[in-house]
Amino acid sequence: MLTIHHLGISQSDRIVWLCEELGIDYDLKLYKRSPAGGGPAEYKSLNIFGTAPVITDGSLTLGESGAIIDYIIARYGGDRLKIGPEASNFTDYLYWFHFANGSMMPAMMVDLAFVVAQVPADNPAQRFRERTRKAFAAVETRLGEAPYFAGDDFTAADIIMHFPLTTMRMFAPHDISAYSNLRAYLARIVQRPAYQRARAKADPDLDWNVD
Amino acid sequence: MLTIHHLGISQSDRIVWLCEELGIDYDLKLYKRSPAGGGPAEYKSLNIFGTAPVITDGSLTLGESGAIIDYIIARYGGDRLKIGPEASNFTDYLYWFHFANGSMMPAMMVDLAFVVAQVPADNPAQRFRERTRKAFAAVETRLGEAPYFAGDDFTAADIIMHFPLTTMRMFAPHDISAYSNLRAYLARIVQRPAYQRARAKADPDLDWNVD
Repeated sequence: MLTIHHLGISQSDRIVWLCEELGIDYDLKLYKRSPAGGGPAEYKSLNIFGTAPVITDGSLTLGESGAIIDYIIARYGGDRLKIGPEASNFTDYLYWFHFANGSMMPAMMVDLAFVVAQVPADNPAQRFRERTRKAFAAVETRLGEAPYFAGDDFTAADIIMHFPLTTMRMFAPHDISAYSNLRAYLARIVQRPAYQRARAKADPDLDWNVD
Repeated sequence: MLTIHHLGISQSDRIVWLCEELGIDYDLKLYKRSPAGGGPAEYKSLNIFGTAPVITDGSLTLGESGAIIDYIIARYGGDRLKIGPEASNFTDYLYWFHFANGSMMPAMMVDLAFVVAQVPADNPAQRFRERTRKAFAAVETRLGEAPYFAGDDFTAADIIMHFPLTTMRMFAPHDISAYSNLRAYLARIVQRPAYQRARAKADPDLDWNVD
């Protein structure tokens, strides 16, 4: 049986949501962050790198959001929620699926690290933070072109992109009030029954109605 | 015709290497970094986020290493250099393919940003940099289990993982002298004719014999 090891308020919320969208059975094991905000030692020892998400499935232990999503869709999802090479929007799907953790999350990780380090506003290295602004601007542009990241239909690109747009902003705040396309998109996502089920199971104490 | 827009000393070196490994024809357009180290305006305007790599192919413009690799392998590579769901090492391939830009590069981006920001060694935020040490340790462990990241055979997981292990260390130095498995791996990679061709075409002035 597929087990999702969910660290509260972390990227593993994507995997719970994916399974709810696909209607897949899974065991959910919840872990709480330490008061300092990190994952508990029990979570860090689950896989070789120690970060969320992690799943186990028989003898398999697997980390990385992108890897887990690809695995679950191939193994249990009948290739639903992904876009294949035969479709005209294959590259839109690929781009945003990889952009989430390949560009947007790294930019926001630098934001978070700079906030914790209290890097002064006039430090020349603040130029690195321009990437987060560009990432949100790119998202706003895309969501003006199409209702979902890959195009007309909801896909796993939305599931992986949603975290930096919402939960990650609790760690690395970013004002989205000017981004009307993004805000309308987030309001559409909140209406999804699978999203609501996932949030209720994964982080029941969290105010997840992010706007 | 597929065009690789290669920004010198950047993640687009992967795409040149991929095409050499696959024996695919491509046009190579070279761009030099500004004296300050950034990409030129002409490169930044190629796609929505402005970073390397970028390819164009007819009316398509595509960024993100993972997306470009998946696209080229599907469109031109006959699914070579990837591992499919039917193989026993499918999840090893997926994990390392996503780990490169989903975990290792973000950790090294924080390293680079902290070096530029001159964050003091006793700053509590230095804990973020522990992730890079853990990433290299995970790599060393993996390369003690198997000759290549996905297992017995060279795959695109090696092409995407190689950048943080080599070129990225020019920006965010990391001592690998104690990692004998990693050093032996890098020595094997340097012997590959396709790797040598890619380096000679992409960054002919660079000392790419990284050890």
